[in-house]
Amino acid sequence: MFMQIKPYKKGLEYAYSFGVFPTVELMESKKDDLIKVLIMESGLENEGVQKAMDICKENGIPYEINDKAINRISKKENNYIVGVFHKYSMEIEKGNHVVLVNPSDMGNMGTIIRTSLGFGIRNIAIIRPAVDVFNPKVIRGSMGSIFKVNIEYFDSFEEYMERFPSNEVFPFILRAEHTLKEIDTSMTRNYSLVFGNEGSGLDEDYFSKVGRGIRIEQTPEVDSLNLAIAVGIALYRFSK
Amino acid sequence: MFMQIKPYKKGLEYAYSFGVFPTVELMESKKDDLIKVLIMESGLENEGVQKAMDICKENGIPYEINDKAINRISKKENNYIVGVFHKYSMEIEKGNHVVLVNPSDMGNMGTIIRTSLGFGIRNIAIIRPAVDVFNPKVIRGSMGSIFKVNIEYFDSFEEYMERFPSNEVFPFILRAEHTLKEIDTSMTRNYSLVFGNEGSGLDEDYFSKVGRGIRIEQTPEVDSLNLAIAVGIALYRFSK
Repeated sequence: MFMQIKPYKKGLEYAYSFGVFPTVELMESKKDDLIKVLIMESGLENEGVQKAMDICKENGIPYEINDKAINRISKKENNYIVGVFHKYSMEIEKGNHVVLVNPSDMGNMGTIIRTSLGFGIRNIAIIRPAVDVFNPKVIRGSMGSIFKVNIEYFDSFEEYMERFPSNEVFPFILRAEHTLKEIDTSMTRNYSLVFGNEGSGLDEDYFSKVGRGIRIEQTPEVDSLNLAIAVGIALYRFSK
Repeated sequence: MFMQIKPYKKGLEYAYSFGVFPTVELMESKKDDLIKVLIMESGLENEGVQKAMDICKENGIPYEINDKAINRISKKENNYIVGVFHKYSMEIEKGNHVVLVNPSDMGNMGTIIRTSLGFGIRNIAIIRPAVDVFNPKVIRGSMGSIFKVNIEYFDSFEEYMERFPSNEVFPFILRAEHTLKEIDTSMTRNYSLVFGNEGSGLDEDYFSKVGRGIRIEQTPEVDSLNLAIAVGIALYRFSK
């Protein structure tokens, strides 16, 4: 298949994994969606690149030495290897979920994906408008763990709840009555941990009605915790 | 005082806070180190900028409309307001500490400062070589909370321990015997939570001898948690 590889943008039908580690994750978890692997000539001696090439050979994944294409799509930084893959659609499954309402920071998004997988959460719901998870910055921030989780976009929180009506909902709200330390996490139902946008948080009036609001105890000297930090602490507390 | 404002680099004697929020924190916490405040003409109608100008007037802090200087020092992004301040030296005080060994990521560093203050930790030790905390990326990541904490650099962990011999040391090590969940945090001594570099972690042989190693339980599917996430979870667990 001939294709002129372009710098990433949201409308493209394909996306990229930059670097050895995310590209190996891509090859191992999403082989069917992989189009090809691009390699820089200067990377041929690199141990990680060689390992990646071996995986390509074993699995019949096309790869090519193509410095020009890599330079065209990667901005400043050096990348020995790039995976090109079809964007795939995902559906989240029943279970415990992280639900992000209007996340906008790509670095945070990647870190949240990595942290979720680190605590065994394989299903993440995102309420639009929101960041594009196939953006290379998200994939990089996730260290490739994005290829091992399901991420599904919803147009509204109601739409999400209609699909998973039996999940117990815990919205994280700055002024909630209950603290994370006092909450009982021994419930038998699946849970949904819900977090708002980096700047504006969750709409308290609405979300305090759909679930049991939780706040993470903090000093008044910072406005709020960073979103990825809050998700990490919540997942730690809820994990068994 | 005449000074030609230059883009930030490590060797400069002064540094910058970009944006309204960090600059107001700077004015409130480090007034004596503030040289002047620069304002963009297009920001004069902005409510936050006006509030900042009021604080300047009340406190005799020099300010000037100087688009040229702001454009010279801020790279791409728009900044209505910039605080220019003398780099100050800090000493950490007795108490509970976060100790970072060779941190290298500026965004992580800023997030860790903000998170520490959020959990009441006002003293952070950094073991060299390490990131420059006056870099604008760190200050931005800290959302200005850097102006409310003490950060001190040490040449080695031994040097730090000589200053604070009675602190109880908890190094965070991937393969430690004890997990964060099982550790007893009701100690009466002050504690030092010690974290390694983003890529390489802590030297396990050395640090397992200087304190009680702790690991944060996680699935094997991610290599490790992001450093700032690990610090956030640890601080949450140790905070009362």
